[in-house]
Amino acid sequence: MYFQALFLFSLVIISSSQAAVLDFCVGDLSLPDGPGGYACKKPSKVTADDFVFSGLAATGKIIPLIKAAVTPAFAPQFPGVNGLGISMARLDLAISGVIPMHTHPGASEVLYVVQGEICAGFISSSDNKVFFKTLKQGDIMVFPQGLLHFQINSGKTSALAIISFSSPTPGLQITDFALFANDLPTELVAATTFLDAALIKKLKGVLGGTN
Amino acid sequence: MYFQALFLFSLVIISSSQAAVLDFCVGDLSLPDGPGGYACKKPSKVTADDFVFSGLAATGKIIPLIKAAVTPAFAPQFPGVNGLGISMARLDLAISGVIPMHTHPGASEVLYVVQGEICAGFISSSDNKVFFKTLKQGDIMVFPQGLLHFQINSGKTSALAIISFSSPTPGLQITDFALFANDLPTELVAATTFLDAALIKKLKGVLGGTN
Amino acid sequence: MYFQALFLFSLVIISSSQAAVLDFCVGDLSLPDGPGGYACKKPSKVTADDFVFSGLAATGKIIPLIKAAVTPAFAPQFPGVNGLGISMARLDLAISGVIPMHTHPGASEVLYVVQGEICAGFISSSDNKVFFKTLKQGDIMVFPQGLLHFQINSGKTSALAIISFSSPTPGLQITDFALFANDLPTELVAATTFLDAALIKKLKGVLGGTN
Amino acid sequence: MYFQALFLFSLVIISSSQAAVLDFCVGDLSLPDGPGGYACKKPSKVTADDFVFSGLAATGKIIPLIKAAVTPAFAPQFPGVNGLGISMARLDLAISGVIPMHTHPGASEVLYVVQGEICAGFISSSDNKVFFKTLKQGDIMVFPQGLLHFQINSGKTSALAIISFSSPTPGLQITDFALFANDLPTELVAATTFLDAALIKKLKGVLGGTN
Amino acid sequence: MYFQALFLFSLVIISSSQAAVLDFCVGDLSLPDGPGGYACKKPSKVTADDFVFSGLAATGKIIPLIKAAVTPAFAPQFPGVNGLGISMARLDLAISGVIPMHTHPGASEVLYVVQGEICAGFISSSDNKVFFKTLKQGDIMVFPQGLLHFQINSGKTSALAIISFSSPTPGLQITDFALFANDLPTELVAATTFLDAALIKKLKGVLGGTN
Amino acid sequence: MYFQALFLFSLVIISSSQAAVLDFCVGDLSLPDGPGGYACKKPSKVTADDFVFSGLAATGKIIPLIKAAVTPAFAPQFPGVNGLGISMARLDLAISGVIPMHTHPGASEVLYVVQGEICAGFISSSDNKVFFKTLKQGDIMVFPQGLLHFQINSGKTSALAIISFSSPTPGLQITDFALFANDLPTELVAATTFLDAALIKKLKGVLGGTN
Repeated sequence: MYFQALFLFSLVIISSSQAAVLDFCVGDLSLPDGPGGYACKKPSKVTADDFVFSGLAATGKIIPLIKAAVTPAFAPQFPGVNGLGISMARLDLAISGVIPMHTHPGASEVLYVVQGEICAGFISSSDNKVFFKTLKQGDIMVFPQGLLHFQINSGKTSALAIISFSSPTPGLQITDFALFANDLPTELVAATTFLDAALIKKLKGVLGGTN
Repeated sequence: MYFQALFLFSLVIISSSQAAVLDFCVGDLSLPDGPGGYACKKPSKVTADDFVFSGLAATGKIIPLIKAAVTPAFAPQFPGVNGLGISMARLDLAISGVIPMHTHPGASEVLYVVQGEICAGFISSSDNKVFFKTLKQGDIMVFPQGLLHFQINSGKTSALAIISFSSPTPGLQITDFALFANDLPTELVAATTFLDAALIKKLKGVLGGTN
Repeated sequence: MYFQALFLFSLVIISSSQAAVLDFCVGDLSLPDGPGGYACKKPSKVTADDFVFSGLAATGKIIPLIKAAVTPAFAPQFPGVNGLGISMARLDLAISGVIPMHTHPGASEVLYVVQGEICAGFISSSDNKVFFKTLKQGDIMVFPQGLLHFQINSGKTSALAIISFSSPTPGLQITDFALFANDLPTELVAATTFLDAALIKKLKGVLGGTN
Repeated sequence: MYFQALFLFSLVIISSSQAAVLDFCVGDLSLPDGPGGYACKKPSKVTADDFVFSGLAATGKIIPLIKAAVTPAFAPQFPGVNGLGISMARLDLAISGVIPMHTHPGASEVLYVVQGEICAGFISSSDNKVFFKTLKQGDIMVFPQGLLHFQINSGKTSALAIISFSSPTPGLQITDFALFANDLPTELVAATTFLDAALIKKLKGVLGGTN
Repeated sequence: MYFQALFLFSLVIISSSQAAVLDFCVGDLSLPDGPGGYACKKPSKVTADDFVFSGLAATGKIIPLIKAAVTPAFAPQFPGVNGLGISMARLDLAISGVIPMHTHPGASEVLYVVQGEICAGFISSSDNKVFFKTLKQGDIMVFPQGLLHFQINSGKTSALAIISFSSPTPGLQITDFALFANDLPTELVAATTFLDAALIKKLKGVLGGTN
Repeated sequence: MYFQALFLFSLVIISSSQAAVLDFCVGDLSLPDGPGGYACKKPSKVTADDFVFSGLAATGKIIPLIKAAVTPAFAPQFPGVNGLGISMARLDLAISGVIPMHTHPGASEVLYVVQGEICAGFISSSDNKVFFKTLKQGDIMVFPQGLLHFQINSGKTSALAIISFSSPTPGLQITDFALFANDLPTELVAATTFLDAALIKKLKGVLGGTN
């Protein structure tokens, strides 16, 4: 008798979900996306693997120029976070490593120091006030949305941090790359940054920019 | 002369809407959905019927186990609410009927007692404080988002309630079904609920679970 | 031993909520409000009564002019919905009763016919297309945010409907009252509605407007 | 050596964006839309032209009936604003021109007077209170979401205003057109507006309505 | 000359921020809160310390019953995250430790395994489907908003995880505590959980509940 | 008889709004603010003047260094936009004037060229791609949220633009001021920007920075 009860009850619940599982929306990167994120993978094809990502487990590839690596687990890499208002990334900072001045255009960030010592800070927009502090292992720091901020390995060992964001697609705009690693004409860079053309051309050379 | 004026004016307005009616987005369940809901049915095919739903007019199918029925008018059943931040459902409670402990993961709820007497309550997350009260015909009660709550027919007749939600896809997670009506291994249920294996297996038997 | 365990565990949970219960924010109408709603009543003073409202249980006071009544359970009347994205109201329509053309500036609406027969409809903004239908007992209809809509008792008995909104403060702007029940100068009303001054003055007379 | 550094670093950044540029979502009007707006044009096909719109540069086509023109730059006309929470429009008011009573169902508006003098106002929903003022060149005025408002050329020259909205698809519902420029039966208009049938039929005649 | 230029320019910028720094809103827990969070601490009193929290650096106090600890860095503990849509917490799991079945009513979660091995999973609301997996050091897993989930130390050493949330006040509702650690009458618990009264009273005894 | 009807009807409407007008929330800058904006001015003290701002009518004070001026009408200057998701500002560009590289951390922007010719552009975050174009009078351009952008007077006369934002508090972070007009130590600037210390000190000198 109990079994029959269950059977009937399940019918009600199942009929309410026949078209889609709406608890989540694992991104299907092969379909057109929209302002809110990727279209959803069919629920029948979603497995536990869609919600797990191992790409942050290993040290990222350290870039000599900055002696650091950023490894993202944003929606394009980890489609399980699509639509859920959150994502993660891993920062590896070799000795003297730096994550240069940058912003995340669409998200606030919290950083957790897994290992090492990191000097981190951000700059307020209204009065250019700087907030920075040296963080020890286990400390966390929050960086409000869209503000310029940086992280520097201030210790004597390599450092590792896990950062999380208030968006599955926080974006990452490194100021130097935005200014010098593209074809924005030198005179426009000069006019909008107060830097002189010779320096701009030199930095474009280093960072791969042209014009 | 007036007619010509109208004609010209209409052109302006119509040109602004040639691509889509954007006042609403009746869900087209045959297209891929996204984090914000279903894709929109073509405006030219939308009629008044898309905004009306009669599925709550009749008593839902009462399930013997709980002597109650939940009939949803969420976006999958009633695509007219897609994207509009609202939905409804009907609760039928036979004598002694119960809607067991459950949550709506993505919405707050307001309940209106159409008929009968219902004892309803919810549990706060931070201090496990319980808020419950016996509701008479015409009373309304609000259940904050995501919190465990329940409804019990506390009167001598059957009861009917209309509930509405702050989302077109509020979800419904009945705790007992979530724990016992699936293949989550008994040892994991035991480890995470403090219940013993024998009881879990018994409840899995009643509710159709395995493992 | 178990009791001690509990004691320690509770400390952790309680310390996380010492400043406030954040599951809900029952409105304290005596404090300044903000863009998101009223300030929160102190959690220690919140009881189950804050989440229950009986003001919709009785027939509203029927207004002869429209043979109808609107009884709101918005945040100002029912502070328990503050911040929860939802609210309710009751419509009473005597025989021939009408809820005149109106909008809710900040919310979509779903209507449930508790009793009687109601002809209801709304007008799309982009092409002035009308969507209306006669609703029987138990039918529901959704009205997208901000659009002009109306309800008319189309049956032979009085009618009762429960409506819910996607906001705790949906607002209610009845077009005739907005145009004629205030001191907006007749010439401005005339200029912006295509109605002639004599009619405007007559309607201002009926609805209590001046100027 | 620097070049190699750059090369490696770029790989990291590029791998995070291989699927899509998520800074923006230029609308592709040929694809199905969703509740949050249009689907995104492929990033590889997006150019600077997608973010620029020249349709507001010229005077709109003045409609004799109102001696005014509204030229929208909403997402359907200017797909670059899709998903960005903002849009614009241009108002041209010939001498004695009027933008009749209207609402934007989904957005607040700010108006900037480029040229001329405009009397503008809105009506509060809760108490029908009117807020209006004569604006000079350079003045701005804000109109809260969903409320009835109007603009009248109160000067001796033509007037020009630029308005912006808190949504890429604010909608525009002109009350007279909503009431009289469609097939809503005269008796329903009469019942819901307090206007008599003869006048309604006359206005329907002027504005192109039937029934 | 440059200095004077700066001086004038600064005046413009400063005048725009005289009333408040609006980049962030560090919570002032002594003021009344609202639906969106705590009121803001005066910007002039905000320092870098407000954005840094060291409370997650040390192992939480392990509770014998569950052999685990949850240490939150939500807005009440870490007011720097107020209004920023994000927060963190630390999970310590001794050998055999368990975070019992629970939900976060207002947030999605991402978990990062700092050390050890954790079996974690969640249950979908629509079809009670279970998604669980054993996570190794460095793996991350996402738990969609409001769904029941759990974490179990499945390794041979203690485990440590950092979790982050899509809200500064995600809430934490542990099912067993919600059901058994309060004064909800035994007969109501029984009616809404299918458990028998004797077991409920036993669990209430263990967890500190009454009635 | 009609008058009595009105009287009764008004009572219903007024009772629903006794506590507050919730159509808008004019900011009261003397009260504590919250994450969503300023607390609301008492409705009884709100007048039409609260919704009108004349501060953009005159040319801003041109700063010699950039030959330009930014005049904001954000919530701190124009409290009428508080909570409404929108704001405006005025850009004056003398001949050769420049608004240097900057971001708005919390808003997208649309620019309308009132007069003159402006070269404007922004830089995408994911691939550092530049989108820029020369805008003529009447052209509009949209700048997606949080991305670096600039405006340069590219014509032979002074230029004027009106810009609007998708937030009442968009913020404004000019990169050069953020980097060089504060006390961020020169070695930290150097480490995070690839610029050498001598140049940083020189720019600090020009822009008023120290350390």
